[in-house]
Formats: sequence, C-alpha cells, structure tokens
Amino acid sequence: MGSIPIVSTTVESTAVLLISCPDKPGIVAAVATWIASVGGNIVHAEQHTDVSDAMFFQRVEFTHASTTSLDTLTAGFQAVASNWSMTFTLTASPWRPRTAILCSKHLHCAADLLSRNTYGDLGLDIAAVVSNHNDAAPLAESFNIPFHHLPVANTSTGRQDQEDQLAALLQSLNVDLVVLARYMLVLPPALVKPWTGRMINIHHSFLPAFIGANPYRQAHDRGVKVIGATAHYVSNVLDEGPIIAQDVAHVSHRHDVAELTRTGRDLETVVLARAVRAHVENRVLTFGNRTIVFG
Amino acid sequence: MGSIPIVSTTVESTAVLLISCPDKPGIVAAVATWIASVGGNIVHAEQHTDVSDAMFFQRVEFTHASTTSLDTLTAGFQAVASNWSMTFTLTASPWRPRTAILCSKHLHCAADLLSRNTYGDLGLDIAAVVSNHNDAAPLAESFNIPFHHLPVANTSTGRQDQEDQLAALLQSLNVDLVVLARYMLVLPPALVKPWTGRMINIHHSFLPAFIGANPYRQAHDRGVKVIGATAHYVSNVLDEGPIIAQDVAHVSHRHDVAELTRTGRDLETVVLARAVRAHVENRVLTFGNRTIVFG
Amino acid sequence: MGSIPIVSTTVESTAVLLISCPDKPGIVAAVATWIASVGGNIVHAEQHTDVSDAMFFQRVEFTHASTTSLDTLTAGFQAVASNWSMTFTLTASPWRPRTAILCSKHLHCAADLLSRNTYGDLGLDIAAVVSNHNDAAPLAESFNIPFHHLPVANTSTGRQDQEDQLAALLQSLNVDLVVLARYMLVLPPALVKPWTGRMINIHHSFLPAFIGANPYRQAHDRGVKVIGATAHYVSNVLDEGPIIAQDVAHVSHRHDVAELTRTGRDLETVVLARAVRAHVENRVLTFGNRTIVFG
Amino acid sequence: MGSIPIVSTTVESTAVLLISCPDKPGIVAAVATWIASVGGNIVHAEQHTDVSDAMFFQRVEFTHASTTSLDTLTAGFQAVASNWSMTFTLTASPWRPRTAILCSKHLHCAADLLSRNTYGDLGLDIAAVVSNHNDAAPLAESFNIPFHHLPVANTSTGRQDQEDQLAALLQSLNVDLVVLARYMLVLPPALVKPWTGRMINIHHSFLPAFIGANPYRQAHDRGVKVIGATAHYVSNVLDEGPIIAQDVAHVSHRHDVAELTRTGRDLETVVLARAVRAHVENRVLTFGNRTIVFG
Repeated sequence: MGSIPIVSTTVESTAVLLISCPDKPGIVAAVATWIASVGGNIVHAEQHTDVSDAMFFQRVEFTHASTTSLDTLTAGFQAVASNWSMTFTLTASPWRPRTAILCSKHLHCAADLLSRNTYGDLGLDIAAVVSNHNDAAPLAESFNIPFHHLPVANTSTGRQDQEDQLAALLQSLNVDLVVLARYMLVLPPALVKPWTGRMINIHHSFLPAFIGANPYRQAHDRGVKVIGATAHYVSNVLDEGPIIAQDVAHVSHRHDVAELTRTGRDLETVVLARAVRAHVENRVLTFGNRTIVFG
Repeated sequence: MGSIPIVSTTVESTAVLLISCPDKPGIVAAVATWIASVGGNIVHAEQHTDVSDAMFFQRVEFTHASTTSLDTLTAGFQAVASNWSMTFTLTASPWRPRTAILCSKHLHCAADLLSRNTYGDLGLDIAAVVSNHNDAAPLAESFNIPFHHLPVANTSTGRQDQEDQLAALLQSLNVDLVVLARYMLVLPPALVKPWTGRMINIHHSFLPAFIGANPYRQAHDRGVKVIGATAHYVSNVLDEGPIIAQDVAHVSHRHDVAELTRTGRDLETVVLARAVRAHVENRVLTFGNRTIVFG
Repeated sequence: MGSIPIVSTTVESTAVLLISCPDKPGIVAAVATWIASVGGNIVHAEQHTDVSDAMFFQRVEFTHASTTSLDTLTAGFQAVASNWSMTFTLTASPWRPRTAILCSKHLHCAADLLSRNTYGDLGLDIAAVVSNHNDAAPLAESFNIPFHHLPVANTSTGRQDQEDQLAALLQSLNVDLVVLARYMLVLPPALVKPWTGRMINIHHSFLPAFIGANPYRQAHDRGVKVIGATAHYVSNVLDEGPIIAQDVAHVSHRHDVAELTRTGRDLETVVLARAVRAHVENRVLTFGNRTIVFG
Repeated sequence: MGSIPIVSTTVESTAVLLISCPDKPGIVAAVATWIASVGGNIVHAEQHTDVSDAMFFQRVEFTHASTTSLDTLTAGFQAVASNWSMTFTLTASPWRPRTAILCSKHLHCAADLLSRNTYGDLGLDIAAVVSNHNDAAPLAESFNIPFHHLPVANTSTGRQDQEDQLAALLQSLNVDLVVLARYMLVLPPALVKPWTGRMINIHHSFLPAFIGANPYRQAHDRGVKVIGATAHYVSNVLDEGPIIAQDVAHVSHRHDVAELTRTGRDLETVVLARAVRAHVENRVLTFGNRTIVFG
C-alpha cells in the first residue's frame, strides 16, 4: 500500500493595511511588491488620491501565511513606510474590537447594536453598556452584557464627578472603541481626547444642518423636506468631527416633531451600525476633518 | 317620426380650491357641502391639520359646469370663507401661469425647464428668459423664447441700475411666476417683495446646511456623505424662504468639488422642476416659513 | 367662598373610518356631514379617486364624545354606507391589534418588531412568537412573549401536520394580525384564507423581480445595481399579494451574495415595520391586487 | 548675469488601463511595476476580485510622458498581459467617442444627452441623431447635429428594410458608441452583434421586473411602491444585457400610469446619462452578464 502523501497545506490569515502619505509616483508598486515579497496575496485593494491636497490613501486587504505574525509584518513594513513618509496601521481581519456602548434614555441604537452583534453583523466584543440613566439595564441584561450606571448627581460637582467616573471606567475597561449610541451628555475635550479616532457618535440630523439640541424640532420649524442622521468621530468641537456615514429620508408637512423623531430613529440605527461596521472592518481613514471610507 | 331626445351633455371644467384657516369642527363638511351645492364634484381632496398651531389646510380639486364661471364660484364661496375665517384661492386647472425664467452662466436648470415645457411636463407660458449674462441667448432662441440681457455695468451704480431694470422688466412682462434657475445675483428685498409666494429659487445645497456661496466647496470641506438641492420661495432673507422641494444624493471621498458640482446639477434640475410643477398645479400652501405641499 | 364652577369637559375618543365605494358626486360631503351630525370633528382626512376604475377611497380620522360607543357610531353610519354602496370599517384609534409573529432562523425582523413595540413604535399586543425552529425561543423570552415551537417532523405527513397545528394555533390565539417576519415555509391557501388582509409577509426582494427562493442570489447573478424588500398581504399565490411597502438600496459589483444579504436585512426590517405600522394605524385599503396607503 | 536654467518640463498625458484576468497572487504588483517602469504615475486605481469566480478586475488611470504614444504603451503591456492571461484595453483619457444617438417619439433622453454634452458633462463626439420618426429633427438641428430619419415603411419588408438601412448607417458613421435613448423598436441580433459592449439602452423599469412593453402600465397594475430605470448594454436577448446603472423613485397609489410615466422620465434621463458617462470614462468592465463599474 502506498504511503500517505504529505500535503503542504498553508494556513492563511488575513490582514488589512491602511496607509496615508504624500502622493508620489510608485507608491502602489512599492506596497504591492512588498506584499508579494512576504508571500502575501492581495484580496482587495482600493486607493484614493486627493489631488488638491496631494495626498495618497490606500486600503489593502491581503492574505499571508499564519506562521508570519502581524508583529513581524509590521516591523517589516516599517522600512517601506519610512521611505514614503507613510502613516499606517496593520490589523488582523476580522478584527474584534473591545467596545463600550454609551446610551441615555433612547435605546433604539443600543438595542440595534446589541441585536446585530448577536447575528454576527458587527463583530464587536462588547465589554459594557454604560448610561447616565438606568433604563438600559434590562436591555444589557437580556444580552448578557455588563451594565454600568453612572448617574449625574444633583450637586455642584455632579456633572464633573460623573465625567471623571466615566473617563476612569473607559480606561479600566480597556476598550478599543467607544460608541455613543444616543448618549445625550456632551463630553468634555479632556475626556474625548484619548479616544480620538476611536469614539463614534450618532447625531440625529444631517450635519452640518441643525447642530446642537433638538434637531427634529429645528427641522420641523425650518420645514425641511428631508431629514438625516450623521455618524462621526467625536472631536473637541460639538458635532464637528469627521463624518463617517450619513443617510436621509424624505418627509413632508404631515410629519410633526413626534413623527420626524420616529422616522429619524430608523435612520439613526442604520447609519450608526454602518459607521461602526466600517470602522471595525478598517475601512475608514481620516484626513483633517474628512474621512475616506473605502467601499 | 319620433322626436329627437334632448340629451343634456354638460361640459365640465376643473378648478382647484386652496384653503387655510383656524381649525374648527365642520370645515370639511362645509366645503364639501358648498361644492355639492354648486353642482361640483370633488375629484381629489387632501386636508392637513397642524395640531400645534391649530390650523387647517385643504386642497380640493373639483369639476363644475363650464357655464359657471370661476368669478361666479369665487363670489359664491366668499360667504363660506368669511364664516370660517379662511384665506383661499380658486384657480382653473390646468393653470398656465405666465412665467419669467432668470439664469446666469449655468444653464442646466433653464434648459431643463424649457425642455420639459415642450413635452407638456410643466404647463408654463414662458414669457421670457432673463439673464445678467448672454450665455443663454442661443438656448432661448432655440426654444423661440424672447431673451433679455440685463448685464451689470462696472460702475458705482451698476448693480442698482440692473436691479431697477430687472424690477421694471418683470412688472412689464406681467408674469404670474418668476423662476430663479441658477440666477447668481442676490436680489434686494424691494425687488423680491411684489413676488412673495410667486418667485421660486433653486439653491444648490440641502438647506439649511451650506447657506450662501459655493455650497459644493463647503460640502467638500466638511466631508459630507450626502449632498442636496433645495427649491424654495424667495423671501427677504437669503436662502431662508419656505422650502417647497428637496432632494439628495449620496457622495463619497471620491467626489472632488467638480464631481460634487456635476452630481449636484442633476439634483438641481429635478428639484426645481418638481417645485415649479407643484406650484403650477396649485399644490403648495405656505404657513409662516413652512409649506404644505399636497401630494 | 365661591361655588366651584361646573366645567363641561367632554372626554373625546378617536376613531378611523376607512371607506371604499364607486365614485359619485357628493360622497365627501355626505361623510363629513354625517360626522358633524354625530358631534364628531375631523382630525385628518384623505381621499383617493381611482379614475380608471371609477372607485373612491377615503380615510377619515375623527374625534367623538367618548360616551358615544363605536358600535353606536357603526350602526349609525350603516345608512350612509348603504346609500353609497360603501364597504367600510370603523376602528378605535389607537388600535392595539392582538398579533402573532412567525419566524424561522433569521431573527432580525422578529427582533426588530419586538424591540420597536417596547418603544411604543408599533402599538401591537403581541400574543405569541411562533416558529418552525427554536432559535427564537431566547429572543421571545427576553421580551416576555410566549414562544410556540412548531417543528416539521421528518415524516410523510410532517409538513401537513405542522400546517394543521399552525392553523389551529392561530385560531386559538384569537389574533387580529399575523406577521410573517421571515417565516420561510410557504403556507397553503387554506391556511392563508381566513387571514386575508390580516397577514403580512416580508419578501426579501423588490417584487415582482426575483420571486421565489434565494432572491439575493438571483439579484447577484443578474448583476442588479439596486436591491429591495417588499411587505405585502399574503394571498393564495406566492409573492403575489397586494404590496403595502417597498424600499431599496443601491449596491455594486462589490456586493457578493453575503453582502447583499446583509444590506438587505436593514431593508427588510424597516419595510416590514413600516407596513405593520400602516396596518395598525388603519391606513391601508386594498382594491384588487393593489393597496391605497394613506400618508 | 547667470544663464537661464533649462527646465525639463515633461508634458504629461493620461491613459486608462482596464484589465480582466484569472485571480493570482502578484497581479497588482506586476501592473504597478510595469507602469513605474515606463515612467508612469498612477492617479487612480481600483481593483475587484470576484471570489466565487476567481476573477480579478482592475482599472488604473495613470499619467505618462506625452512623447510615449498609446500604441507604444499597448505593445509594451502585451507581455505582461500574456503572462497573466489578461484581457485589457488601454485608452487615452479623456476619451471622446464618436457616438450615434437613436430615439423615437419620446425625446427627453436624447434632449438631455445633447444638452449635457454642450456643458461638457459627457464628452461625446455626437455624429448623428437617428430615429424612425422625425419628431427629433428640430431638436438635432438646434444642437447642430445631423439627423437621419429612417422610417419603417408600411410594407411586408418595411421593418427588415429599415433595419438594413440602420445597420448600414451605423457602419458608415464609423461610431464608437450607439446610445438607444428610448428607441422603441427591438433590434435583431445580427444588427446588435457588431456593437457588443458598445451599444447602451435605457429600459424604463427596474429590470428584471417588468420586462418588455409598457412597463409603467405593468408597474401600476402590480401596485408597486417603487419604480425604476435601467441602463444596460444591449445583448441578443431583449432587456437581458449587462446592467450598467439603475435608479429608483418612490411612488404611491396616487400615481396613475401617466404620473408614473412622468416620474419615470426623470429617472430614465439621469440613469442613461450616468451609464454613458461611466462608459466614456472607461469605468465599466463586463464579465458574463454582469458589470463591474468602478467608482
């Protein structure tokens, strides 16, 4: 009887490389050549050149032998990156970021994220649901997610105290991503800063229209025929961070504020989920106050 | 031989009644009863009650014997209107408003309106194309519409002189409707005032976002993922009048300002045409700074 | 001390009247006059005349003294209805229909309906979640809704037996509405018949494109650039009943079948919820195989 | 005084490379390396891997020294193409294809294409407007485009004769692109064949729904809530060719067939223009019956 042949089955892993650098001839070739040199195979690649700013952006998804670690690849790519003045990240795919979800009294966005995650639609490792109210406690419990109630005490230092607790909690949770799923308290710059590019908010309007409070009331009073929702990275300035995703719905005079709010909820949940998914799939690059979201 | 039977073939006309009044029980019955009393038959009717403002709005399209004139009907309805404190208009349908189209150098909206009108898509009686530039002259000529060139002289009174000429021209044309089809000069309040509710502008953004000049540049710099166009009645305050129609398109980082502009042109033409048609069909009521646009 | 003034505070209830009848002059007046005659006040009214079929449809929402019962009103309106050959329903508003939700293995629609209902977005009295699989058991439990598992036994009469059990269960539950929230077994005509106009299905395509199984696979193979979802009343013929709501999303070559499916899920949940809400608010009339959905 | 320095100002041209081939590791690197080797600089590049079919598709837009001709580049790339079993085209950008526009009695699409082309929105070299009716003659004349009237004689061979004339005319015009802008006669396979991948049709429905005649009538009778338009390459089978672009609009019971038709016209014009522009910019690859349309 013949011997069993030894089949060299290489186990493959997938990684995503995100690059930003000044535009120059030869970048694409340099990246592709490097990937080929480490035995990688490009599965998807997308580039964007911002002509007015002379900047180049690229997302490359490639497979590589699982025996080659991400650290090894990162170290290897460093030389290419230096040569082309690149900023880059190299992340395993799928990536399962440890995530905190913050909400207040409106629970549709938080419920939707928890629900999608159970279908494998998002791929989050949800570490906690955090809220200044306790309405979300049963929701978190039904999905077996730890719930943290951080109420604002009615004292002169109540707000500051709560912010300190929240900052400490987020640090101690050691999360990769913070999602503000209709968290209705404005966060101070010091709290936001450590999470730059890792904190996503849903604003219930088509920004930059209707910045600030009660956007559906504002939309009603202006008599618009379209409403929207905007998911964006949080920056120091309220509602001014880089926009990741937006969507809109047609409305009419028949929509009073309550009906606008109801229609808007569907937008908010879908837009926030879309932004979170793009972030988790490492499809978002920021440049100044804008994003490149690869398809 | 038998006598020839006398067949009463009534020739029918159609009229549109637009009503605004404080909301009270019985309005719909009062209007419907009056229409029945004059031998009319309701073809379409739509109501809207604004609960927060306690206002009632209605559009009724009805047929009536052609032998009963619109003036007779209007006089007859006056008693009902007084009783219920109504503001109303009664217009023959189809209505063919005498119209002036104003444009500057971007001709897509003007060309589209002229083109649609030849297909019977708008029902305008276009009296003139008017512009501060003469780029539209061949366009107007190809559609056999008189063209008026009102350039702004490079003098200290140039702008004022041109505005005076424009005001006089619009009066002398005796038009029912003025359409600003990408007319790029801001009009002074005194010129706008006589045309309240009869002058429609297309703004190349999703108002109230990106008010003022270069909205596509503004949209690009803010990094929005959706752009829009807004058709509105012109009021004293720039870009602040009642919105009649809006539409939007999804965009991405791949759209530079030129591409946003190109994508936006399709929105502008469609939105302006939609607003003009709604106006011509007497489907628009204004209340404060909002509109009710019946379907 | 002064006497306490007697204030006549009438407690008001709201009802919705849905009417279909051959079009004739005077219907609107007759209905409005009757409502005024019973002391009612019209809050919203919408009519539609189908000119080609000479049919008239109306939805009237009106307030009436709570002391006048719906049965009294219904009896009173019968004379008007007979005179104009009307089919009508008169329902209290808000209406809270007792509802069964049927699903299989894909739970996003069922989860969404349960979730919305807790926010008061739908107003359902959910009597049961029913499924041929038991995947939905924990979901139903987390919302405190009874779950019924009706598996199909792997026998020659398994399918028939399960259909008999389902028919009996729906009868015994005494529900007003059955929602097929991605229930993946085709129902036989005899089971469907008692629920005509009261059973809503979500089909995961833009009907009539891609009837039948695996519509996202079909959409991918045809290379469409838009996908859709359709909510419709269930009729005897598969995927042929009157359409209540549809929505669509743009897709591209980058969407493989899995990605189309994922994108489609958002459409399915939103479209089904929209259709259910329209039904619950008594905004849907059917005529032949079409619907009139008042705004 | 110093001498004037000699500045080597290279004049640059732009070209677009479109590639289809079996997917293998190293393709992107091979293409990018070749472009760098001829002194080219990649401006935009987009790839797509169809995993289920193991096919790779790429569009690369690059600049090169104008002194290097397209023929030279094509010859040079041949070796790379052979090595990777590629099908490819290499085209100068912007490309100004010589184009024939065919229409019948509905002129909105033809008028729109002519109008856009005057704004530089399409970049066509329009050689002729051709029709089986003469309604378009004044339109063509107003844009100074030759018009060819090819009526169908009312004889037993009338249709065949006209098709022969049309085939001969298209050959003699020596066009690169044929656009069926609501040309209402079905073309026989023999006429279509020479124009495979170079003949674009607009169908007035969301294909594959409502194939064939009177799609707006079909849409009305089915009671759909969304209508669409589809631009596709023409293949032998009616309405079955690869889809390039689609768009949709929401409609309701208020839209009778005439209103659906009117709403649909806006879709048709925009969708056809979008497809033509994608083709002109060499952004479309076909694979089987599907297209890859790069962004």
